[in-house]
Amino acid sequence: MATFLEKNSYGKHAINLSKITRHADYHEFRQITVDTQLEGDFESVYLQGDNRSVLTTDTQKNTVYALAKSHFTASVEEFALYLANYFVSHEAPVQQATVEITEHGWSRMQPKESLHPHAYISKGNEKHRTKVVYKETGTSIWSGISQLLILKTTDSAFEGFLRDRYTTLPEASDRILATECEVSWLWNATGIDFASLYVDIRNTLLETFAHHKSLSVQQTLYAMGEAVLEKFREVEEIELVMPNKHHIPFNLEQFGIQNNNEIFVATDQPYGYITGTVKRSPSL
Amino acid sequence: MATFLEKNSYGKHAINLSKITRHADYHEFRQITVDTQLEGDFESVYLQGDNRSVLTTDTQKNTVYALAKSHFTASVEEFALYLANYFVSHEAPVQQATVEITEHGWSRMQPKESLHPHAYISKGNEKHRTKVVYKETGTSIWSGISQLLILKTTDSAFEGFLRDRYTTLPEASDRILATECEVSWLWNATGIDFASLYVDIRNTLLETFAHHKSLSVQQTLYAMGEAVLEKFREVEEIELVMPNKHHIPFNLEQFGIQNNNEIFVATDQPYGYITGTVKRSPSL
Amino acid sequence: MATFLEKNSYGKHAINLSKITRHADYHEFRQITVDTQLEGDFESVYLQGDNRSVLTTDTQKNTVYALAKSHFTASVEEFALYLANYFVSHEAPVQQATVEITEHGWSRMQPKESLHPHAYISKGNEKHRTKVVYKETGTSIWSGISQLLILKTTDSAFEGFLRDRYTTLPEASDRILATECEVSWLWNATGIDFASLYVDIRNTLLETFAHHKSLSVQQTLYAMGEAVLEKFREVEEIELVMPNKHHIPFNLEQFGIQNNNEIFVATDQPYGYITGTVKRSPSL
Amino acid sequence: MATFLEKNSYGKHAINLSKITRHADYHEFRQITVDTQLEGDFESVYLQGDNRSVLTTDTQKNTVYALAKSHFTASVEEFALYLANYFVSHEAPVQQATVEITEHGWSRMQPKESLHPHAYISKGNEKHRTKVVYKETGTSIWSGISQLLILKTTDSAFEGFLRDRYTTLPEASDRILATECEVSWLWNATGIDFASLYVDIRNTLLETFAHHKSLSVQQTLYAMGEAVLEKFREVEEIELVMPNKHHIPFNLEQFGIQNNNEIFVATDQPYGYITGTVKRSPSL
Repeated sequence: MATFLEKNSYGKHAINLSKITRHADYHEFRQITVDTQLEGDFESVYLQGDNRSVLTTDTQKNTVYALAKSHFTASVEEFALYLANYFVSHEAPVQQATVEITEHGWSRMQPKESLHPHAYISKGNEKHRTKVVYKETGTSIWSGISQLLILKTTDSAFEGFLRDRYTTLPEASDRILATECEVSWLWNATGIDFASLYVDIRNTLLETFAHHKSLSVQQTLYAMGEAVLEKFREVEEIELVMPNKHHIPFNLEQFGIQNNNEIFVATDQPYGYITGTVKRSPSL
Repeated sequence: MATFLEKNSYGKHAINLSKITRHADYHEFRQITVDTQLEGDFESVYLQGDNRSVLTTDTQKNTVYALAKSHFTASVEEFALYLANYFVSHEAPVQQATVEITEHGWSRMQPKESLHPHAYISKGNEKHRTKVVYKETGTSIWSGISQLLILKTTDSAFEGFLRDRYTTLPEASDRILATECEVSWLWNATGIDFASLYVDIRNTLLETFAHHKSLSVQQTLYAMGEAVLEKFREVEEIELVMPNKHHIPFNLEQFGIQNNNEIFVATDQPYGYITGTVKRSPSL
Repeated sequence: MATFLEKNSYGKHAINLSKITRHADYHEFRQITVDTQLEGDFESVYLQGDNRSVLTTDTQKNTVYALAKSHFTASVEEFALYLANYFVSHEAPVQQATVEITEHGWSRMQPKESLHPHAYISKGNEKHRTKVVYKETGTSIWSGISQLLILKTTDSAFEGFLRDRYTTLPEASDRILATECEVSWLWNATGIDFASLYVDIRNTLLETFAHHKSLSVQQTLYAMGEAVLEKFREVEEIELVMPNKHHIPFNLEQFGIQNNNEIFVATDQPYGYITGTVKRSPSL
Repeated sequence: MATFLEKNSYGKHAINLSKITRHADYHEFRQITVDTQLEGDFESVYLQGDNRSVLTTDTQKNTVYALAKSHFTASVEEFALYLANYFVSHEAPVQQATVEITEHGWSRMQPKESLHPHAYISKGNEKHRTKVVYKETGTSIWSGISQLLILKTTDSAFEGFLRDRYTTLPEASDRILATECEVSWLWNATGIDFASLYVDIRNTLLETFAHHKSLSVQQTLYAMGEAVLEKFREVEEIELVMPNKHHIPFNLEQFGIQNNNEIFVATDQPYGYITGTVKRSPSL
């Protein structure tokens, strides 16, 4: 045989689970989507069609629902960690389990001054995510925010860039900066309060974005990552993806109307795609 | 010729426009998507390819940007009304103009206790919409909410329904009720404060949903519509579309675990699709 | 009570069903998505929460699967008609049933010269659709094509249109015409061979599009509708929606390169949205 | 400073480009989406906001359009290679350029027996993709197919798998196997006929899928990869992602109807997600 199985993994994706916890004075509602992915010694499955070692993706799904009752009681990070540990400890020859959870946020309604005990409204498409990779040689726990749609109307410039024969972009001393961030960070500790740290890190990201005098998306990206690392010792590295949601001044002058940076065309495509990973320096 | 043009319309869709208004102490940022649609005496365009009467969709787009500076200064309803009126008054033979605007909500960030002057975060996928149909015989102004994703964990039952040979649905005395509403209402007045009435109507919808002891999606839908009509004389009729976002109890009992209405499978398809229009009685 | 229920309907959407029919020498595979929608005397459901007359959406779904075995044996039109008839004949007080079916096309693979007996490949996102509205006063049967993505690289112009102060669009004597059509037509007969007429009508639409010397999207739209009505006596009227998928010449001249109508930017937003309904003249 | 920039990259995504080549007897139309991504010594951009070395994403976009005229004349692989080489050779400190191209397939219409010279219809959502990573230490060229939606109605089983306390999946000796494949392979040669090899590899994948007696998705996946490596010496490794598009027999028996593997519920979520990489053995 001139070929071999270099890599393999299988799992169940889009396991949509919701949970009600009935407290004395209100109902707590949470909704998550879980993806599981197992790797290990499954060569005989792929090569010989021998299924004896397969923990089926249907069973993986059942397991998530079965374990949710007792173990999805705090942060999504802790539930992902529990699940990943469970799968690696299983009799099936799983060497590495990856569990990703996306939480769909819900807020209790507040029709009058107080929170309603059991009526909820969606928090929107911004999501809290986590990804746990569990294997014998070590576990990594990532948390992150997806679809964080933010914007500032000023304190953003983009000037002094390289000009070559194909450059037509005008310099901009004052432009809209808008982005739908994907942020994820690697924790260097366990047993910490993931849920409240998440809130604090998110606030730090927003504050830095808001107050930064941006010379480029790149620079703002770095500043956001750096701020998190400086403030949170529990974070080892942070990756930011900041696609540029362009807002381009519309040419009103052609109609004899002045456009003092007021009226813009918001475009989806094409879009700048800026990424960077900021890491804590070793030896420090 | 054995055929004729029974109906025609044309316009520009997905005109994405954003606007900054620079106030003394903060920047106001708004983002909208505009769809225009014109109808009129355009038979020669379709039948003979005579374009002399065509106000091109590109020009419609330019017009929206050009008029936004001076006329998109208050509610989306008023801007839609202005645009629709503009198109019907045009030299082109437009007899009816429909302008739909969807506003993408943005909130000012509040990193500390006070609002930031120019940093914004998206309000999520819930949208404020309006639709104005302008023609000689009368104008109708609709407002609405799309993607209003709401849920209650109790005070919802569905029992006593018809059972035939294909019925397997169990009775549910206590279930999750979740829906992504599309609501739209027809105003019976102009010159009113659309923006603040919108907020009040939205609150009334949420409050009614939260407090209703639901016997079915249908009954809750009617209650929500009725509450709006009773409270807001300016509303003539209201249409609600309430697709059921099903949350089905997962069968944990098969694993020897009790599921006291705690763990659910959230499903997207298939889904119940419930609609209704509630109207003010004539002569009352 | 100052309000009343002006309109109501409810049903199950996105009922995804696939069927294998095992012929002697090959397997026939078909996949459809069914939406059902019932209207009738359901006032007590909405107003009093009395569910006794509700044929639940879950039962509607079960019914579709149960009846598919014996009745989804030919065209989607006939199955939709059967289902709509079934629902109106039901003991529930249904006065009107609307059944929409979208067929997801699959072709048998042809790895060598002959068709494989049971391996299939998707036909893509173009879909055959049907919509049947059944009520006592008469039944209407619509068929249609959705996501018909077609394009021509020449024989398309757009010139001589109205110019006003906001017009900047250049005249185009030779442009790309691209559109993702939604077409639907109303049959004036039953008991006809819907499936083979569908193929013929689709071919007529494509041929007309291909051969037309287009002076505008509007004119091509009309020509396509007219061709169908002239050729198929079974069609009463036809509605075409032809959003313009713009391809805009890229300005290469700014780099000293000639663009002889060769290189284009394909844009999604904003887009022209052209519609028209062509109907058979009465008395002819 | 306790932090550093571990990784960075930036580029322009969703550059939508179409091209007409006017041959003597017909027009060739092609449409692609290009993503560019540059990495290099851009630390001063991120840390100091010094933009002097930035080849802006807007210029990257312009470059793609400018070079398309002379260099997008054959396979997407060759154009991607040309672009990636161009960016690394640029005065900007680019050390690695990644160019991904997705081709949107179009077929010439065939209204009668012959191909129409300039009318096209979309080939659907299946896409030919390529990804070229160009850097000093070596270039890698990947090709692939995305959204390859295929299915077989028999010759697929899934039996003998591990059963634990959460396993409820029944054994299936004859089931539908459906998947929307993402396939990509690494070439070990340049200067080859990418376009015609692509067609041959695609055919090999389809044939293997069609003829395989599947004991699991995993086994079929491996067989497909192995067949490509055995037949095409130019391929070094191949990665397949085969999400399971489940078709679950509907329980008709509860209504007294037999379901001989005829009527299925097609579900989207959750779904099994099976992946594997098959590689040519070294030293062979």
